[in-house]
Order: sequence, then structure tokens, then C-alpha cells
Amino acid sequence: MAAARTLKLGAMIHGVGGTMDGWRHPDILSDASVNFGFYKQQAQKAESGKFDLIFIADGLYINEKSIPHFLNRFEPLTILSALGAVTSRIGLVGTLSTSYSEPFTVARQFASLDHISGGRAGWNVVTSPLEGSALNYGKKHPSHEERYNIAEEFLEVTKGLWDSWEDDAFIRDKESGIFFDPRKMHRLNHKGTYFSVQGPLNIARSRQGQPVIFQAGSSDSGKTLAAKSADAVFTNHETIEDAKRFYQDVKQRAARYGRSPDDILIFPGIGPIVGRTREEAERKYEEMARLVTIEHALNYLGRYFDHFDFSQFPLDEPFPDIGEIGSNSFRSTTDRIKQIAKEQRLTLRQVALRAATPKDNFIGTPETVADLIQQWFEEGAADGFIIHANVPRGLDDFVELVVPILQERGIFRTEYEHDTLRGNLGLPIPANRYAKESVKG
Amino acid sequence: MAAARTLKLGAMIHGVGGTMDGWRHPDILSDASVNFGFYKQQAQKAESGKFDLIFIADGLYINEKSIPHFLNRFEPLTILSALGAVTSRIGLVGTLSTSYSEPFTVARQFASLDHISGGRAGWNVVTSPLEGSALNYGKKHPSHEERYNIAEEFLEVTKGLWDSWEDDAFIRDKESGIFFDPRKMHRLNHKGTYFSVQGPLNIARSRQGQPVIFQAGSSDSGKTLAAKSADAVFTNHETIEDAKRFYQDVKQRAARYGRSPDDILIFPGIGPIVGRTREEAERKYEEMARLVTIEHALNYLGRYFDHFDFSQFPLDEPFPDIGEIGSNSFRSTTDRIKQIAKEQRLTLRQVALRAATPKDNFIGTPETVADLIQQWFEEGAADGFIIHANVPRGLDDFVELVVPILQERGIFRTEYEHDTLRGNLGLPIPANRYAKESVKG
Repeated sequence: MAAARTLKLGAMIHGVGGTMDGWRHPDILSDASVNFGFYKQQAQKAESGKFDLIFIADGLYINEKSIPHFLNRFEPLTILSALGAVTSRIGLVGTLSTSYSEPFTVARQFASLDHISGGRAGWNVVTSPLEGSALNYGKKHPSHEERYNIAEEFLEVTKGLWDSWEDDAFIRDKESGIFFDPRKMHRLNHKGTYFSVQGPLNIARSRQGQPVIFQAGSSDSGKTLAAKSADAVFTNHETIEDAKRFYQDVKQRAARYGRSPDDILIFPGIGPIVGRTREEAERKYEEMARLVTIEHALNYLGRYFDHFDFSQFPLDEPFPDIGEIGSNSFRSTTDRIKQIAKEQRLTLRQVALRAATPKDNFIGTPETVADLIQQWFEEGAADGFIIHANVPRGLDDFVELVVPILQERGIFRTEYEHDTLRGNLGLPIPANRYAKESVKG
Repeated sequence: MAAARTLKLGAMIHGVGGTMDGWRHPDILSDASVNFGFYKQQAQKAESGKFDLIFIADGLYINEKSIPHFLNRFEPLTILSALGAVTSRIGLVGTLSTSYSEPFTVARQFASLDHISGGRAGWNVVTSPLEGSALNYGKKHPSHEERYNIAEEFLEVTKGLWDSWEDDAFIRDKESGIFFDPRKMHRLNHKGTYFSVQGPLNIARSRQGQPVIFQAGSSDSGKTLAAKSADAVFTNHETIEDAKRFYQDVKQRAARYGRSPDDILIFPGIGPIVGRTREEAERKYEEMARLVTIEHALNYLGRYFDHFDFSQFPLDEPFPDIGEIGSNSFRSTTDRIKQIAKEQRLTLRQVALRAATPKDNFIGTPETVADLIQQWFEEGAADGFIIHANVPRGLDDFVELVVPILQERGIFRTEYEHDTLRGNLGLPIPANRYAKESVKG
């Protein structure tokens, strides 16, 4: 695969955006998070740029302090299904929590999306960081460790259900009246710690075998789960050095589980800001940053710490010591925030504004952004990127200005190679576990 | 409403169909149940015929004896979302079980479908008749009575979550930076027998206020649930007399709960078979009936009785007494089968073949079928119908041949009156419960 290695690209479609106040920008549709026309335009734009996939994030708990996009947005499986009907090649990846759902339902819905789209579905497996999610499901929020144990078993069950039918099980011979071969229908009969699921699933495998599995937790448990069971990892890094360390770490873990490092792709998320000049790009950033109030910045920061109320501390003194608060949620993020605050002796105001108005490193002219992407890709920090639109027309500018440069340099496709997500990502089609057995036998 | 009362029509899109062997017909696509092109064509055909809605049924358990459509089919919420993207006026109604899902997730997914489609979503509430469903969800199948208690609380929670945001909660004023009015965001704080759900839901109400609620159980508990909480009832009757009795019963029950009988619509399911002559229509039926083997007919019958194995009994002796088997599942259907078998002294073979090759009463020339529809509608047996395609091109023929007659007679629309499902059905938009309170206060 080394010779043919090409960059992969995903587009996060995220309504009014991932900030507290970005929706106030005059060029942002303030109802974008529930505007189907906007999602359709963005998905089709990404497809025109030959992106591998679009990505829909999710969450299960909100309160008065949540960022606007989270308060009122589409649910991933429904919006992805709708977008599948108005696109033809691009992959459709959505977040769904293993802590608050049932494997039989999840397996079905992703398999159904996979059939609707002709083999373009992907599932970003998360374990729900926010404690509050439990309040909407009438249970106790499991610990970080237990959430990952649940996730592992959940994924095992889901993949098992996806293999319920061998690829040639449905004969559909009108003459003989044989619709299917019962020997190629399999019950999972799973009885585990958290789930007990008989099967079979009431839907076949799709053209790509199984939906692509993304994993998005960067904690130790997250990396282990990814190395064992995921096809791709969605991650975040501030520097290329951090990204390389993470990249090598995950690839080595995958190798320890007997997998080829090529079979697990690493996608850092980036929010490129492109201008005709460096100054224009900086101006675009400043336009967004200026919209953020310190009150909203504190809310935004608090979100990572399980909605901790930072407004009780003085703004211009060193970032307060709040102990282990939030460590059961976005652990890797909160650790990083605390570490940087300490190292750089930042005040609470500085930490909050920096968190709420993150300035992406991928900023500048189209060439500058393309250079950085190429560097990360070629130096082993990334197999691809998930592009966030942190400024108005962020995705549009990237597709129109940066993609052509990447294509010219020969590191990104000019046409889709396949019509399934696995095909375009260069991932193998997982053999049906039962078909393998019968070949062996 | 009496003066303006017009017929309502729904189209059941059901892949290879609701029979064991219909897929063998040369004019039926044998992969129709997972063929998105087929679903899209059928939905657009129904929309061209100005149907109020399409309807996607569902189930959570299969085995070797299940009918072909059940083995491998789309999941309702995903296929409806996809169809929402390729239609613009027709309602999108899908079945989902309250016995094996979580209200927070169900409320979100239907609300998301409702936004994607601009206010065209509907939910057919079922309680999962098949005991086997429990095996796929690692729990005990609740009794018939308990399933309806769960359903009632589930529906209460879902409707509560849908009102989380008052209609004018999202201000989105870029100047002042106010995205929403926190006084118009409401937590449900539900703590009941089966569910404990805090809220708020992370999606607003749609243009139709809340998705339309269908209910499909015809048992006493089913009728009570419908009368209390549903906007529409999907039912099945062999004769106009039965249909009238049911119609009056449900309308009277609704009135006892203080509701207007006009606010709950009754939709019998019918499978019209249309020919240019009566003989052509009969031939179409015979073509389908001829495909059914007695073995498959016994399987089909057994499905209603919780997959009971009828092959152990002699075929040509009176229908066996099997006691209460199946009474926890499709109770109203099994009661009817047993009653007819007894009254008409049918053999097992006769009962099985009749069940597996049901001959719809709505058969004949387009005029004959239109006459029957008009009669049922005008004599108070139906407010509308859910049309099943029991023969190839069943829906296409109905749209092309029967709909124009109904339009000419002035009982069916020639153009959509509204662009929401509630609007077209003539159902009121439910006021937000909290908005009402503040008006009262």
C-alpha cells in the first residue's frame, strides 16, 4: 500500500459550528444546525471536492450553557440517511454512543444506512463523555473504564450481528422458490457481561461488508479500543510532534493485535482558515474570535469539565486547581488544558478565551495550508484529516482553493476510485466470520 | 370539518411484499426490500398521486420461517429520512416499538426526521407482538398488558420531550448575541414506573409542532391507547360492518377522553387489485395465489401464533384447538382467525392458504374499487386507507387508475393543501404545553 498511499479527507458538517458565538457572524446561517438545505449543500460541496466522507458529531445532554449547535441539531443517523439520498459517492459517518443504546438497534440502523447509500456508511463509536447523558436515560453514568468495557462488548456484538447473513445467503431463485439458504443465516447467540443478543439481524451485509468503524477517544482505553476494533481514528493534536507520537502509538498497538498498521487510518481534526493572503486568513480568524464574550468562553471551557462553573474564580489570576473534576468525561482534553495552563502560566481568562476561540495552526494562503497538510501526511502524523469549518465558507474555501493544490501535487484523488467508503479509504472488506469458517472447514 | 371532509390516503411501501411467495412473481424485484431505487420510485409515485403519507412497517425478530420481506429490509427511520430528501410534500410514517427502545432516542430521531422533511414525520407506535424480540434485547418480553402500560408512559415522555422548546425559544439575534430564551427551554423531569427522563431534548419542535402519532393495535388496550394519545389508527377489517363498529368504538372512546372525534383518523389497510375488467383483476390475484406452497402457508399462519409449528397437524382436518398460544402477540388477528375457522368449519389447509393468500375485497375495475372506497369513507367505516401493493404495480395502478376517479368525484385532493403532514391530514398543531401555561398564567 505504501506506493499508492494517498491522503484521505473528511468534512465535519456541524451546523452553526463548534463555538459559542460563531453563529453571530453575518455570513453564518443562524439556523444552520437544523437547516437541511445547508447540510445538503455542504455534503454536495464535499463530494464535489472528492472527499472520502462527511462526519456528523453528536451528544446526548444539553443545558443552558451548551454551545448553540448542541441545543438544537439533527440526529446523526437520520441526517446521514437523508444526505445519502442526495449524494452518490461520499462516505456517511456519524457518531453514536455505546453507553446509551442497544446493539441490535444500532447494528440495524447503520446497516440500513449502508444499504440506502450503496455501501457508504461509517460509525464513529463514542462512549458519551457527559455525565448528564445518564439523566436522559434513567441510569447511572458508567465510569470511564466501564464505558470502554461496554463499548468493546457492544462493538463485538454489532460486528457479529452484521455477519448474520453470508454474502451469498440470499439466492432469490424465482423458479425453485428458494429465497435464501438457511445454512448461510447465523445466530450470534451472544451472552456477555453487558449484552445478551441472539440474532440474526434482519438485514444483510452491504457491498462494503460492514460499515467503517471510527473511534474518537484519545485516552489509553480509547486507543486500545481503536487498535483492536476500529478502521479509523478521529483525533485532535495541537502540534505535529504530538500527532506523530499518537499516530505511531496507535499503529503499534494495532500491530500488537495482529493487524496491519495500514488497516487503521488516523484522522486528526483541523479547522483550516484560508485567505488569499496570510493577512486575509488572520482577519477571518479575528472576525470570529471577536464575537466571543468572556462569559460564553467560561461556559465553553466548563463544558469539558462536566459543566463546571468557572465563573466563581477571578479571571486574571492563574488557572485554578480544580482537582479531578471532569476526568471522567473528556479526559484527554482536560489533561491537556491543565498541562498547558501550568506550563505557560496562563490566567483563567487566557485559558477560557483560548479554548473558546481556538486558533488553528492550519491558517494562511491555500499553499501554506496545503504545505502543512502535506507535511503532516508525509511525515507520519496523519493518514487524512477531518476538516471543520471554523469560519464561514470554511469548507467551500477548502474545496475550491486547497483541494486543487493537493490534487496537483498528486497526494489527493481527482476522481473517486470506488463507490463504497471502504473502497475509497483503501480498507479491506472484512470477510464474513462464518464464511471463513466454512472455507477453513 | 364535516363539510370539508376529504379522504386521506397512505401507501405502505413494503419491499417484496407481505406474503411468503409474492417475490417469485416475474414482475416483482426480488431484492425490493433493500432496493433504495424501488423505495424512491414508490414514494415519488405516491406523492404524484397526492397521497397523504407513505408508511413503513417494522419488526424486531426473525427466524427461518419469517416471510422474505422481514428477513432483509430497511429500518424505518433511516429509509424514511432518505425518502424525505427525495420528496417534498408527502408524509413519512414509520413503525417503532415502545417495548425495545428509549424515549430520548426515539423522540430525537422522529424530531430530526420532522426537521429534515419540513414537518412531515409520523410515528406508528407499536408494542412488538413477537416474543422473540426479547431475545435480541436481552430482556423478558413484557405481557400484553404491561406492553401497553409501557407504551402509554413512553408516549407521554416522548410528547413531553418534543415540547422541550417553545416555538419562539430560538431568537437567534446576532446583534444582541442572544441565541435562545432560557425561559422557553423546559426540562421534563419525568420520573415514572418505566422511565426516568430529565430533558430537555436537543432539538426543537418542527413546523407541524409534533410528529403525527399513529397507533396500530386493535385490541382493547390498543384502542384505549389510541383514543387517549393517537392522531390516527392503522387497522384491518374484513367487512364494512366490522370496520364501522371499530370506527365508532374508537371515536367514542376519544370523545370520552375529551377529544373531538375529528382529531383521530381511522385508516383501514387495504390491498386493492385493479384490472381493466373484473376478470383481469381476478387473474392478477390468481397469479399471486398460485405461487404459494402449503408449507409456506403454514409458516405464514404460524407467524401470527408466535411462530407456532402447524405442520404437526393433519392438513385436511378441522383447524386444531391450540388454546391460548399466540394470544400475547397479534391478539386481535389470532382471535379473528380462530373465530372464522370455527364459524366456517375450515380445515387447517383452508385456514393457512386463506391467511397466506388473502383475497382483498377491494378487487375489480378502477370504478369498483373507487365505489368501495367511497362507500367505506361515506358510511363511516374509514377516514382514509393505507394502500398495500399486494400485486406487482399495485400502487402504480392505484395511483394511475383509481386516484383520478376519486379526484373526479371530489372526495380526494387534486393538489396538496399544505406542506406538513398534520396540515394535509387536517389535524390541529398541538400547542406546546408550556406555552399554554404561560398564556393561562
